[in-house]
Amino acid sequence: MRDDTHLLAAMGRLNAEYARAIDDDRLECWPAFFAEECLYSITSRENIADGMEAGIIYADSGGMLRDRVSALRQANIYEPQRYRHIIGPASITAHDGDAFSAESPFAVYRIMHDGRTDIFATGIYRDVLQVAAEGGLKLRERVVICDSSVFDTLLAVPL
Amino acid sequence: MRDDTHLLAAMGRLNAEYARAIDDDRLECWPAFFAEECLYSITSRENIADGMEAGIIYADSGGMLRDRVSALRQANIYEPQRYRHIIGPASITAHDGDAFSAESPFAVYRIMHDGRTDIFATGIYRDVLQVAAEGGLKLRERVVICDSSVFDTLLAVPL
Amino acid sequence: MRDDTHLLAAMGRLNAEYARAIDDDRLECWPAFFAEECLYSITSRENIADGMEAGIIYADSGGMLRDRVSALRQANIYEPQRYRHIIGPASITAHDGDAFSAESPFAVYRIMHDGRTDIFATGIYRDVLQVAAEGGLKLRERVVICDSSVFDTLLAVPL
Repeated sequence: MRDDTHLLAAMGRLNAEYARAIDDDRLECWPAFFAEECLYSITSRENIADGMEAGIIYADSGGMLRDRVSALRQANIYEPQRYRHIIGPASITAHDGDAFSAESPFAVYRIMHDGRTDIFATGIYRDVLQVAAEGGLKLRERVVICDSSVFDTLLAVPL
Repeated sequence: MRDDTHLLAAMGRLNAEYARAIDDDRLECWPAFFAEECLYSITSRENIADGMEAGIIYADSGGMLRDRVSALRQANIYEPQRYRHIIGPASITAHDGDAFSAESPFAVYRIMHDGRTDIFATGIYRDVLQVAAEGGLKLRERVVICDSSVFDTLLAVPL
Repeated sequence: MRDDTHLLAAMGRLNAEYARAIDDDRLECWPAFFAEECLYSITSRENIADGMEAGIIYADSGGMLRDRVSALRQANIYEPQRYRHIIGPASITAHDGDAFSAESPFAVYRIMHDGRTDIFATGIYRDVLQVAAEGGLKLRERVVICDSSVFDTLLAVPL
């Protein structure tokens, strides 16, 4: 049995910092979790089962991720609600040279301006990661597979 | 202070894979998380406090676990809802030779066919584990202690 | 890149045991997670943004923490509801000699006497920790920053 302890610890660290960047509204930090050549997609379990890979949100370069953040900031299309990600322990699902695949379950809560809190989304991150030169991890792919296909039309913040 | 870092990492890995097997509807993989001689039980905090150990679901062998999965598949008594487990960090509570005891808190969400998501159950796994020959862990006991005594009558999928 | 793997593992262990002590209603164990000279505060993201650091609950010594538990036990002002903490992976945010800072996201569920479960609070622990002589961690500060400013008037149990 391969000892993935070190990679799992690094995944926990990446997930913690990824969630904190979004939940602290430091969206400008979010693209830096990805490799420059990357895939980020939000889709649903049902879409995946139907072979529809594209998802409702899709970006395949660091530039697209940064554009998305700029658009969010400029258009201010999202309401003043806040989010809280709780990410469960990761599984390493495959190894491929200096890259590996992992899955991490998540629950995201939404806190409305009036204080009400509800469950916004649950699902799994299906990731491909590379070990960066300095020992950290970069996301080559993060496919966000939501358990529910009913997306809030306000969905705009990264998951 | 004993250094349980390695065991805690192994517990995180087991919990991640256990949750993923159920949430991906790969129920046939679920019995393999247990030793052949085992105890699996779903009960409530109130039942435990009242000294009623048996629980509402009970299995004490790998055969009973596999039978349970077969029954679920054949009878199709459970609705087409899906689940998402988020498991928190584990505590090691006792050591006994090559076995140890651990507790891990969980929250399970249910995603209905129409997309609604609600909290289905919260509680704690009270486990006894053995370190298997290949270094992995097997559950000798997993007692699922739900915080609420109000169980949905549809409760059928493993927790 | 500094390797925080060991500290992160210790944080996971502390968070697991902290949550378990509260959720098992072993409140008398709760002050022991803190250094004798300490800060414990419950506040909200909005209060922090407004520069109001004091919070709605505040204690700055082990004695105050113990007094708080005694008051809860004697006055019995809290209802027979139970709680379940699910704490996400921690981030180490700063190092300072034998102390370090960390943040951990949490979700707390409340289970009412009639069995209903709802989300009680989400937020983040903003901690300062010291490595104790025996290798364990002690909280010098735990500031509980809730995402919502709407607190249940029954808020009495530690978060």
